[in-house]
Amino acid sequence: MKDELNMSLQPEKRPSEPRTEEEKQQLQNRLKRIEGQIRGIQKMVSDDRYCVDILIQLSAIQAALKKVGYTLLERHTKTCVSSSIKDGDGDHHIEELMKVIQQFSK
Amino acid sequence: MKDELNMSLQPEKRPSEPRTEEEKQQLQNRLKRIEGQIRGIQKMVSDDRYCVDILIQLSAIQAALKKVGYTLLERHTKTCVSSSIKDGDGDHHIEELMKVIQQFSK
Amino acid sequence: MKDELNMSLQPEKRPSEPRTEEEKQQLQNRLKRIEGQIRGIQKMVSDDRYCVDILIQLSAIQAALKKVGYTLLERHTKTCVSSSIKDGDGDHHIEELMKVIQQFSK
Amino acid sequence: MKDELNMSLQPEKRPSEPRTEEEKQQLQNRLKRIEGQIRGIQKMVSDDRYCVDILIQLSAIQAALKKVGYTLLERHTKTCVSSSIKDGDGDHHIEELMKVIQQFSK
Repeated sequence: MKDELNMSLQPEKRPSEPRTEEEKQQLQNRLKRIEGQIRGIQKMVSDDRYCVDILIQLSAIQAALKKVGYTLLERHTKTCVSSSIKDGDGDHHIEELMKVIQQFSK
Repeated sequence: MKDELNMSLQPEKRPSEPRTEEEKQQLQNRLKRIEGQIRGIQKMVSDDRYCVDILIQLSAIQAALKKVGYTLLERHTKTCVSSSIKDGDGDHHIEELMKVIQQFSK
Repeated sequence: MKDELNMSLQPEKRPSEPRTEEEKQQLQNRLKRIEGQIRGIQKMVSDDRYCVDILIQLSAIQAALKKVGYTLLERHTKTCVSSSIKDGDGDHHIEELMKVIQQFSK
Repeated sequence: MKDELNMSLQPEKRPSEPRTEEEKQQLQNRLKRIEGQIRGIQKMVSDDRYCVDILIQLSAIQAALKKVGYTLLERHTKTCVSSSIKDGDGDHHIEELMKVIQQFSK
């Protein structure tokens, strides 16, 4: 499925090393918190809160999302990218890594 | 309440012009979509999806949050900041605007 | 002249309030320092310095450029945008401000 | 030397594979162009050009610096990081890579 962010999703693909249950739980906890923060902003909009306050909370969510992203990036580099390098065909994964870093750092 | 993003929240403060119900509904629709996208990522984590795919979806959420933020920024500048400028004490609101722009653009 | 960053330059246009010589000097000092930092990186490339070190210095230049940008943004908002708001036709300048903020915060 | 951007410079360190003269020349050409753009902005300040026009040109320089940075990042990952991974001690270099990516993407 082509994603409008010009990098195609690869639904069949899995990490070179499956995530442990503990890894999954840590990610889910952080995502649950972010989900709660989004609902918090919905409430601020209903309460017609001051615009700057809502923007501050939006910034907090962006910061939290970035942290999740960098956790995924590091894990990906230490597993999928590293194993492809050890197998001698790292360039494709490195170029993919650079593309997603640029996408994610916009 | 001091927010760890070093700008204090002002829970009592309201926009100089209350948001219309239509404005609120548009913001809520976008926030609901973002909330859904977060849950989508939770599912990707459970399904142990490929790291790059999750990062692409995270980038999409960041882009959506940015759009919401810029909508709020423009509205804030056209209402609260403008009315303070017309009242002759715009500097405080402009400095606050610059601070939140830097915060939001990190 | 159409700039590839999709905002047209307006060479004939001047700030609503001319910059003082002191303002100009402060901006020029900072720009001179940045120019020196760029030459510093050219030297690092000639000396075949470690990539991460060059990237750290590039980040320092980006941070310095951002500060110059936010100084210009605040000045612009306090002069050109404010005077247009007082004259009752602020919306155009506010929309232009939002566009340049998005451009500048990429 | 401790850099205020909290990552220490490593003046003695060199890339695992020296840059070719061609690589160096390409980087120098781009850095020369950026240097010229900085001087262009100095002229715009002297000519008291419209703030938004200067900001547009600043954004162009930021974009050019980012491109140089991503070229360095990709080269670094394909050489220094890859060789450390093949040598079995990739984690340090990967963590350093993540840190400089976050620094560079601010």
